[in-house]
Amino acid sequence: MEMVNEDVLRKTKQWRGYVQAKLGFRNHWYPIFFSSEVNEGKPVSTKLLGENILINRIDGDVFVIKDRCLHRGVPLSQKLECYTKDTITCWYHAWTYQWKDGLLCDILTDPGSRRVGKLKLKTYTAQEAKGLIFVFMGDIDPPPLSHDVPPNFLDDNMAIHGIKTKVNSNWRMGAENGFDSTHVFIHKDSQMMPENETVVPLGFSPNRGEENKMVTLVKGDEGPTGVFDNLGAHSRPIFEGTIQGEPVVHSVMGGDKRIALQISIWLPGALKVDPFPDPSLIQFEWYVPRDETSHWYFRTLGRRVENPVEEAAYEKEFHEHWKPLSLHGFNDDDIWAREAMQTFYEDDWGWVNEQLFEADRNIIAWRKLASEMNRGIQSPSDL
Amino acid sequence: MEMVNEDVLRKTKQWRGYVQAKLGFRNHWYPIFFSSEVNEGKPVSTKLLGENILINRIDGDVFVIKDRCLHRGVPLSQKLECYTKDTITCWYHAWTYQWKDGLLCDILTDPGSRRVGKLKLKTYTAQEAKGLIFVFMGDIDPPPLSHDVPPNFLDDNMAIHGIKTKVNSNWRMGAENGFDSTHVFIHKDSQMMPENETVVPLGFSPNRGEENKMVTLVKGDEGPTGVFDNLGAHSRPIFEGTIQGEPVVHSVMGGDKRIALQISIWLPGALKVDPFPDPSLIQFEWYVPRDETSHWYFRTLGRRVENPVEEAAYEKEFHEHWKPLSLHGFNDDDIWAREAMQTFYEDDWGWVNEQLFEADRNIIAWRKLASEMNRGIQSPSDL
Amino acid sequence: MEMVNEDVLRKTKQWRGYVQAKLGFRNHWYPIFFSSEVNEGKPVSTKLLGENILINRIDGDVFVIKDRCLHRGVPLSQKLECYTKDTITCWYHAWTYQWKDGLLCDILTDPGSRRVGKLKLKTYTAQEAKGLIFVFMGDIDPPPLSHDVPPNFLDDNMAIHGIKTKVNSNWRMGAENGFDSTHVFIHKDSQMMPENETVVPLGFSPNRGEENKMVTLVKGDEGPTGVFDNLGAHSRPIFEGTIQGEPVVHSVMGGDKRIALQISIWLPGALKVDPFPDPSLIQFEWYVPRDETSHWYFRTLGRRVENPVEEAAYEKEFHEHWKPLSLHGFNDDDIWAREAMQTFYEDDWGWVNEQLFEADRNIIAWRKLASEMNRGIQSPSDL
Repeated sequence: MEMVNEDVLRKTKQWRGYVQAKLGFRNHWYPIFFSSEVNEGKPVSTKLLGENILINRIDGDVFVIKDRCLHRGVPLSQKLECYTKDTITCWYHAWTYQWKDGLLCDILTDPGSRRVGKLKLKTYTAQEAKGLIFVFMGDIDPPPLSHDVPPNFLDDNMAIHGIKTKVNSNWRMGAENGFDSTHVFIHKDSQMMPENETVVPLGFSPNRGEENKMVTLVKGDEGPTGVFDNLGAHSRPIFEGTIQGEPVVHSVMGGDKRIALQISIWLPGALKVDPFPDPSLIQFEWYVPRDETSHWYFRTLGRRVENPVEEAAYEKEFHEHWKPLSLHGFNDDDIWAREAMQTFYEDDWGWVNEQLFEADRNIIAWRKLASEMNRGIQSPSDL
Repeated sequence: MEMVNEDVLRKTKQWRGYVQAKLGFRNHWYPIFFSSEVNEGKPVSTKLLGENILINRIDGDVFVIKDRCLHRGVPLSQKLECYTKDTITCWYHAWTYQWKDGLLCDILTDPGSRRVGKLKLKTYTAQEAKGLIFVFMGDIDPPPLSHDVPPNFLDDNMAIHGIKTKVNSNWRMGAENGFDSTHVFIHKDSQMMPENETVVPLGFSPNRGEENKMVTLVKGDEGPTGVFDNLGAHSRPIFEGTIQGEPVVHSVMGGDKRIALQISIWLPGALKVDPFPDPSLIQFEWYVPRDETSHWYFRTLGRRVENPVEEAAYEKEFHEHWKPLSLHGFNDDDIWAREAMQTFYEDDWGWVNEQLFEADRNIIAWRKLASEMNRGIQSPSDL
Repeated sequence: MEMVNEDVLRKTKQWRGYVQAKLGFRNHWYPIFFSSEVNEGKPVSTKLLGENILINRIDGDVFVIKDRCLHRGVPLSQKLECYTKDTITCWYHAWTYQWKDGLLCDILTDPGSRRVGKLKLKTYTAQEAKGLIFVFMGDIDPPPLSHDVPPNFLDDNMAIHGIKTKVNSNWRMGAENGFDSTHVFIHKDSQMMPENETVVPLGFSPNRGEENKMVTLVKGDEGPTGVFDNLGAHSRPIFEGTIQGEPVVHSVMGGDKRIALQISIWLPGALKVDPFPDPSLIQFEWYVPRDETSHWYFRTLGRRVENPVEEAAYEKEFHEHWKPLSLHGFNDDDIWAREAMQTFYEDDWGWVNEQLFEADRNIIAWRKLASEMNRGIQSPSDL
């Protein structure tokens, strides 16, 4: 039942826990649906950290159970049968569970069974915030949601809109692509920059001697745990790419709007880019483990609004402008980039054979922090 | 070459042989084709217990050989070349085998080879009965076919018609779904009951204290080995499903015809439901191992007939009425139910992690009996 | 990281190295493209011995690099970016390599990185001959190309034309099918023989007592290493196939042209059939390992020409006549024959369970010679 190659783990001791976390970190909060996707009395199934789960909304609240009957292991979602508001009945032998606590409250095919009232299906705690449904995938008492999301995401005046995409790479390919400062090179042809009158450099040349200032670690007692990348303040942005001293490629100079001044990544795998893609917006995104080889990519943009009118205006602007221009027009390139990394890391040996460079210092900091501060590692025996 | 997880076998000692039998039991008779599918001089290939086999009819008799040339292991069926009635010639190097005993009787590309007359291709014994071709997949002298089919199947006046379907689950998911008394819950919406004026309950509440009467074992010296499920006689049928005391679902009361009074399962994996789906019919069905993850589902219905006129009438009635109404209209639901179980058992851990209940007592009896009384377990080295 | 079953290797000691070479032999020359497929400044990617490689033509010369960036392991071919004639830049973080030696000469996203000038991407030597591009897949100083191609292939007056096909079998299924004398049986219905007024027997009956003359080994110090099959001189060709003494199949007597007088196979996996399919032609073909389960099948025909007029005439004749008639009309049957062998050998046990016969003597000689004389075995750690 070991999932990660032992030889690899021996050779990656500095971030062993991170390399082990092929299925993600357990005992953390993850977004899994937008609120609008889960409707009253209409259970929907999905996969999270390798587990099949089923989510329902009852009297407005969201409940999450394991999508696997205790009896013979079939997915309840294969044929949904909910005879009462508060229960779900397995289509196979009519074992019936309460949504709120998973209790096997009835077996319709044998009402007198001694199993009734004795067994519980695994349940998970859910919480809605900012139009997203977060699930606590764990076994301990959940800490506040605010400990597992980037700073400011939950701010009262922060309006959030976004999209969700399934990406065919491990979640760590997503996290590292997002936090990676020099991957910006892949975006050099994006239409977002000229249309939005901004500029994105081709890369960054770190100031030598300032290595110890490149990242700031935040180990939150009262909030989230993460890493700030300070490369912007301690490097020279590269607008002209040279080979053997000759310029060969240039950044598109779209305008003078300044964006992406502060980039940070937070456990269990969420990025904050502030501001982005516009001085008026912050991008929050999540790389949510689905299984070993895929993740849910949640891309959201937040804007501070003062009243319902501003909020409505932002919602319209998001859908008409920012979603096509930036989420798709800019970030879609990140999807194929992550998928292109997958093969190299799929058998775990990529973690040994990769050759990092100076600009990856923030990625190393993230790996170490995640190894140290995670609340648990999802294992095949959790599935 | 071990096929089943050793840790799992250690934890399932009560029915170890059954858990090992992922590819089925060796040295048993299995139906593999309907007689009408195998025509004179027209070999057809299939897969049984993981083995590729080739079946031919010669002068009316059926012969079965392994579909793999001894020389370089290619399938003979890749390009059939039969130059004489009694032989098959490999398309590759013209090694030629006798259907009756597998003897390498000639090599056309090198007539003088010392291999000729010395080697034999594996053959299997076949026997036709009731319009089905049975193959004895084994290495010992075959016992009579009657030892491996349910009682009454071979009765002189029993006319049999049926269909064959490939199902994407291990054969044991088929056997257990068929013998499972409370799986009847999945059939509650079948059109068979109202159209056939019968009723099928939602489940059964076993009479407490009558546990030792629930099954009857038959360990046949002069006939088949199997288990009768006596739940019908020792339980209360459930026609109304309740949750927290409130009725939520009811059986469709189609009429008062009584069916499924006696259900039994027989080695190596055949079910008898008597009567079903009508007082005038008996359902005999087989779950024939194809490979680890699929089985052939033979569904047949038998009726006692007194003369050729009755026999012809039954054949017409079967095709026009019972096949669409019951085999498809009722049993097609069993197919997706078995396939829904497959994932949980595919890595063998389902046999450990399942949680059975009182109504599964007959399934447990079947597992133990099959573990004790089988004539062998098909292993990868048999392939 | 072991690729071949150890139990199998213990049981195949006589040709252990050959059985190990599932990914082919390292430190040999292999054809990989026709010259016309690799154009100036247009890199093309392919797979050879399990490795992803990238090939470019610069100022007429051909260069080969590993198609995997050193940094995060992505394929450079995912999005080709060549800003100068002599370099390729990774699309992800702009690591830039020289085609000639693989040197990491620039990183456009961080020009000051200490990695620059220190790391080298794996490169392979290429050489063009006879309209084919050969790559030396190895780590040692390459011997002359002439040591790895069949005799006469490089002769000055030999004009070569051919085609390339991906075949879904291990490369050894290709080599053994090609060198196999009695596989000729599969070609008995080819239109090539009647249309080309030639005859191909159904098989060969080796002369008993002449076993030691059946093959001639060539262990080249100054040229290639290979095996000549002398079956033609020491056997009786079979034109009539008999079963139990009765004739059942005959060769098509197309005419009296004599072909295939001399057949030989050469390391690392090239066949020469002289002459074939016509007294005026020699067939040279290669079975080039792509990965464990596929190979590139290069089929070429050579003719001696005295001047450019003859050469042009042959080119036309090849495309209009010999390619459809013989390469497709005759050799396409070899493709499905090899693919039909793949299943039996895929888990390595075919090398133990096969049952060879007298006519396979040349194949055994080839296996032993290849085990003894290869320059290395490609291993998963080379990938």
